[in-house]
Amino acid sequence: MQSGLPGKTVERLSQYRRILYNSIREGKANIYSHELAKMMNLTPVQVRRDLMLIGYSGSQSKGYVIKDLVELIGKIIDSEHGQNIVIVGMGNLGRAITSYFSGKRDKLSIIAAFDNDLQKTDRVVAGIPCYHINQIKDVLNKETINIAILTVSPEATHEVTKKLLDAGIKGILNYTSVPLTVPEGIHLEEYDIVTSIEKLAYLVK
Amino acid sequence: MQSGLPGKTVERLSQYRRILYNSIREGKANIYSHELAKMMNLTPVQVRRDLMLIGYSGSQSKGYVIKDLVELIGKIIDSEHGQNIVIVGMGNLGRAITSYFSGKRDKLSIIAAFDNDLQKTDRVVAGIPCYHINQIKDVLNKETINIAILTVSPEATHEVTKKLLDAGIKGILNYTSVPLTVPEGIHLEEYDIVTSIEKLAYLVK
Repeated sequence: MQSGLPGKTVERLSQYRRILYNSIREGKANIYSHELAKMMNLTPVQVRRDLMLIGYSGSQSKGYVIKDLVELIGKIIDSEHGQNIVIVGMGNLGRAITSYFSGKRDKLSIIAAFDNDLQKTDRVVAGIPCYHINQIKDVLNKETINIAILTVSPEATHEVTKKLLDAGIKGILNYTSVPLTVPEGIHLEEYDIVTSIEKLAYLVK
Repeated sequence: MQSGLPGKTVERLSQYRRILYNSIREGKANIYSHELAKMMNLTPVQVRRDLMLIGYSGSQSKGYVIKDLVELIGKIIDSEHGQNIVIVGMGNLGRAITSYFSGKRDKLSIIAAFDNDLQKTDRVVAGIPCYHINQIKDVLNKETINIAILTVSPEATHEVTKKLLDAGIKGILNYTSVPLTVPEGIHLEEYDIVTSIEKLAYLVK
């Protein structure tokens, strides 16, 4: 049951865990499916279906045991030995993501950054070593790195993507304003801040 | 047909426009539904359905006229007189979003920022005036502001949200790591960078 979950389900499992971590911080030990549903704008049926899919069902009287559920979600979606990430582009957004992500998840680490600004390269920026963009291939050959986060300028996007693909990257998270297409077998997630704002602007108008 | 489109449709219209702007920059005048579909990981049928919903159909031989389609999407999803946005939290992420968004869309403007750091308040940060968080109500009373982008620390999230709701905000885009719930009638979009990374990490593992 663990293998081959659809991307959308993994996304929801990750979001459940985010809410559950927050509930732990607030001192809660149990949570009901209808509470989780409300916080995620889903139906309780959807929540129960997702969690049954990973083999978990709560008790009618006490709901889900948060600690157990967090552990189980981790077993399903995390990689046992952890995964390494690089970030390309250490402007405001690159530094924000690095600081934001630091220490948030045991099994995922941002281990290197790249930039073309010589003021930033060959030193530690936002807690991680920053290399020149031309060193992408060298660094990716030395370490096992599956994911790159792209936060470069629009002009640099295509060239940097090519370097990453040449170096054998398997997954790209694109935060630039330039849409990308990648070859078969490469996983791409795109997120454009403008789209979220436009959607919200439409809903409130 | 323009009113009451589902949020997901608006999201796709915004993403089509992002791709179309990019095609214009690349000097293209026409685009086929299958090209748009491929760049968005959708089926051509879905693309044609979305665009027919807003009253647009291309020609079999030339596809869609990009300029016309951009204009029509704007008429549907943008607000005629424009909308104002504030950003709360001017750390790396707040500054990154402000710079990134600046000048990208005619009808949406980030007009003010808030922070609790006295080094940042009462001056211009990343091109926009930055006020103290305690001035949220005053500023929102003076200007027509419908949307707030939240990039504050986890600790400040709930308190700041309360201030925004008290001041009558209609839409919140939450980039903090703390999940929010808002009253009926308020629109909330949440985006957690960790979720995108976790989803990608699962897909490449």
